[in-house]
Amino acid sequence: MMPHAFDVAALGNAIVDVIASTGDDFLLTHNIAKGVMTLIDEHRARQLYDLLPEGHESAGGSAANTLAGVASFGGQGLFVGKVKDDRLGESFAASMAQTNIRYTTPKAVDGPATACCLIAVTADGQRSMNTYLGASRELAPDDIVPDDIAKAQVLYIEGYLWDQPHAKKAITRAIEAAKKAGRKVALTLSDPFCVGRYRDEFRALWKNDIDILFANEEEAKALFETDRFDDALQAVHGWNGIAALTRSAKGCVIAKGAEVHVLDAMPVARVVDTTGAGDQFAAGFLYGLTHGKSLEVSGRLATAAAAEVISHYGARPETALATVAAKAGLV
Amino acid sequence: MMPHAFDVAALGNAIVDVIASTGDDFLLTHNIAKGVMTLIDEHRARQLYDLLPEGHESAGGSAANTLAGVASFGGQGLFVGKVKDDRLGESFAASMAQTNIRYTTPKAVDGPATACCLIAVTADGQRSMNTYLGASRELAPDDIVPDDIAKAQVLYIEGYLWDQPHAKKAITRAIEAAKKAGRKVALTLSDPFCVGRYRDEFRALWKNDIDILFANEEEAKALFETDRFDDALQAVHGWNGIAALTRSAKGCVIAKGAEVHVLDAMPVARVVDTTGAGDQFAAGFLYGLTHGKSLEVSGRLATAAAAEVISHYGARPETALATVAAKAGLV
Repeated sequence: MMPHAFDVAALGNAIVDVIASTGDDFLLTHNIAKGVMTLIDEHRARQLYDLLPEGHESAGGSAANTLAGVASFGGQGLFVGKVKDDRLGESFAASMAQTNIRYTTPKAVDGPATACCLIAVTADGQRSMNTYLGASRELAPDDIVPDDIAKAQVLYIEGYLWDQPHAKKAITRAIEAAKKAGRKVALTLSDPFCVGRYRDEFRALWKNDIDILFANEEEAKALFETDRFDDALQAVHGWNGIAALTRSAKGCVIAKGAEVHVLDAMPVARVVDTTGAGDQFAAGFLYGLTHGKSLEVSGRLATAAAAEVISHYGARPETALATVAAKAGLV
Repeated sequence: MMPHAFDVAALGNAIVDVIASTGDDFLLTHNIAKGVMTLIDEHRARQLYDLLPEGHESAGGSAANTLAGVASFGGQGLFVGKVKDDRLGESFAASMAQTNIRYTTPKAVDGPATACCLIAVTADGQRSMNTYLGASRELAPDDIVPDDIAKAQVLYIEGYLWDQPHAKKAITRAIEAAKKAGRKVALTLSDPFCVGRYRDEFRALWKNDIDILFANEEEAKALFETDRFDDALQAVHGWNGIAALTRSAKGCVIAKGAEVHVLDAMPVARVVDTTGAGDQFAAGFLYGLTHGKSLEVSGRLATAAAAEVISHYGARPETALATVAAKAGLV
């Protein structure tokens, strides 16, 4: 196998997070549902973006957040996702460069604007999110460069992509490139509703193409249509891959055939914001696997990364995960 | 193999629980530590027994409680443990008969009095326990009837017995009888301090003679000298037996080589008193195993029995476990 240039290549929605502090009156005046995520259209996105007080912009999106975590451990990531050639598209690319993530997907010259998640944070710490998927929905097979995918030890795919019209063909192309190069393919299920919409496709993909499955408890139960965690665990037992099943405060279970690890969540003084816990868990686990760590140590790197991100606001680590891992004696 | 007359034969401390309602003034006047278990001598036991208001007497002790659970499921149990031929000894035997547990160990004619646990329950629901081990400490090899042990599908041994001077030889004799008859041998570790006192003996016994190990998280960690649950799980992985590892609210893990089940605790409206949770867990699991149930269903019978007993005061089920199991769709 040729040497790898990247630890992880990730396919996902390219979204710019715009975070600003507002008062409750801002939410009321502009009809923003408090504390939840609302999908919005381009018109509304433009309107809200103009109205929002000046805030902090950074690249976001689930798989991109995971790569930021991998980079924070000191790993090398390649991101594939679609933005438009507009101001937010520039902002996304700049943020990726700053985070040391390779990002070369060509920007769309027309069509919808770059995806954004406009987040109003009120004094009580609540995050009210307004997501416009825009250009991220335009990811197409031509955006996949097989030679680049072949350079990464693991191809990591975000389940949210199944909601995009052309993404499926892009994913197929990427998986083919990864397999041809003898690389591993990882999938995160992203959301139990997403699993409900594409269960048969996810099941077929999981059986035939996936080497590493990330799922939280609700996603795993949705995939295997059960209300008992153990049923999901038994479902992956005979499968020839690695399942990383997360259970929030209950920790996680890592299973690869007969090898099963039951790991506790890492204690956190105060859980501030669980956004990004799954993304950073995946980051820690993938960093471990791509650096020769055992399943157990990779799982502990994963719980350490998740613990870091839930102890503050935001979906990306504030303390370098390389430092977190060193403190925990894991690297 | 000859047909069995019993599902479980259990070796344990034969203790009569004496439960009475008192005021806080009773505790203060008689110098009883509130809400904890204190070991007392015969003199103090006699004194307190006379002082305690008339209460409810019933057979107790960890392994005997487990057999009461097995019987409550509809199973057949044989108990081996030592009482004296005194009033409490009669009371123990009568209580066992009433619970449909076979009990034929000869009563000691001299030596210390029958063991008792004098429990003062105050209006706030606290249980202040005073335990006198007395005659239960006198269990000897002659008390083991090999032909009786051979008649049970499983021999179940209480770890607390290791604190008794002659019990070890009795246990060896019982294990030999069980093995000769092709029966299974189960051990419950009883207490992390108990494990600390006899770690090497328990480890040797576990490796050489035990088919089914019951341990709660703290006991399992103590046995394998680790502070991580997963290490204990990995320690039993290559072992050729069934490990039932309980984790209180986190549920349990059942492992037999490559077969690993991660089961949730059964939800309880209100946890009233966790006394006996481990004893009834063992009852459910052993009832399942001795009735042809899978590891998973046996584990769920175990969690159902534990959930019943922690939802009220006392270490034995109030609702017939056969009814509990039927309601949960497990039998």
